[in-house]
Amino acid sequence: RGRPAPDPLGARLRFLAEADRLKSVLRGTTIFDGTRRETSAEHSWHLALFALTLGEHAVDPPDPARAVRMLLLHDLVEIDAGDAPIHGNHDPAAQEEAELRAAERLYGLLPSPQDAALRAIWDEFEAARSVDAVFARSIDRVQPVLANLATGGGTWTEYSVTRAQLETRVGDKVRRGAPILWDALVPRLDAWFGPA
Amino acid sequence: RGRPAPDPLGARLRFLAEADRLKSVLRGTTIFDGTRRETSAEHSWHLALFALTLGEHAVDPPDPARAVRMLLLHDLVEIDAGDAPIHGNHDPAAQEEAELRAAERLYGLLPSPQDAALRAIWDEFEAARSVDAVFARSIDRVQPVLANLATGGGTWTEYSVTRAQLETRVGDKVRRGAPILWDALVPRLDAWFGPA
Ligand SMILES: [Ca+2]
Repeated sequence: RGRPAPDPLGARLRFLAEADRLKSVLRGTTIFDGTRRETSAEHSWHLALFALTLGEHAVDPPDPARAVRMLLLHDLVEIDAGDAPIHGNHDPAAQEEAELRAAERLYGLLPSPQDAALRAIWDEFEAARSVDAVFARSIDRVQPVLANLATGGGTWTEYSVTRAQLETRVGDKVRRGAPILWDALVPRLDAWFGPA
Repeated sequence: RGRPAPDPLGARLRFLAEADRLKSVLRGTTIFDGTRRETSAEHSWHLALFALTLGEHAVDPPDPARAVRMLLLHDLVEIDAGDAPIHGNHDPAAQEEAELRAAERLYGLLPSPQDAALRAIWDEFEAARSVDAVFARSIDRVQPVLANLATGGGTWTEYSVTRAQLETRVGDKVRRGAPILWDALVPRLDAWFGPA
């Protein structure tokens, strides 16, 4: 960052080739037919589609294009830092440090000022304060819930998740951006977990 | 379309669950490390990232957010119609008809007027006339070229593609939206195919 980029197109193509590696990061959650774990790249695509279609159910009206951009970029750091499953055990401080280093390296592949601009979108997502970030994060949390419901339990079974844990780790975050979305899932969650 | 949707959120969640099936559509091209074929879902994510970063190399300045939206949606029809590899043999009229039927069914899962709005984005991509569509289509054509270069030939070897065929089927389309992008690849194409 800050150093002159004599070949911005070449730098962007190297960034895009590096980004391809997100297709090899496997998540805890499976695709909706349960046949295999989904990759972080296809998860990111799916979330962008959620953001394109669910905006009117957000508590504050988001800018869908900004939410889409956040969701396309939000998991890139996993290329270096790996996926930290929400119901798994990991050291949050170590994970955060690894993600910060990954963001430096990956966004740093882009020419200036695009490196800073895209990095700022990721920082905004991580900060979880803006309307678009709060909406994007509720989307990011709700998609695995739908995958688990579609596959008869998925990571809930794998990690012995309780309804109370789901409410704290997932429900509270979904409700923050889109309470209507969480409310719509409660009957299906009651059917799977038993009433909260 | 046109009929009342008493539960728009439920309809959107059903659309998003159906869209998940794009993660099971395999393309001819592999991911950049050559280990497996890429899915149309992760291809769509990758293209959206191309559109986010390469806009300044387009011949006419695109609206990146619109190009991103087009690329997120452009392959959804493959859920029903399958992928038609660019260097493969398929009946273009039959493929087009299958894709039109797929678009009716898939966008038709969404409540009105979102069904028509998203369908219009796909129609615009297919028509290949607007600035954003021309740019998005050049992105869609160039990404497999980069995958083939990264893997030492890929589908060019598989389908015995000549340099002349590549120029007609791919180069002309990339040049239409982003001639600078194609020019930047010519030295690498010369090295692989021999000079045009
Ligand atoms: Ca995520």
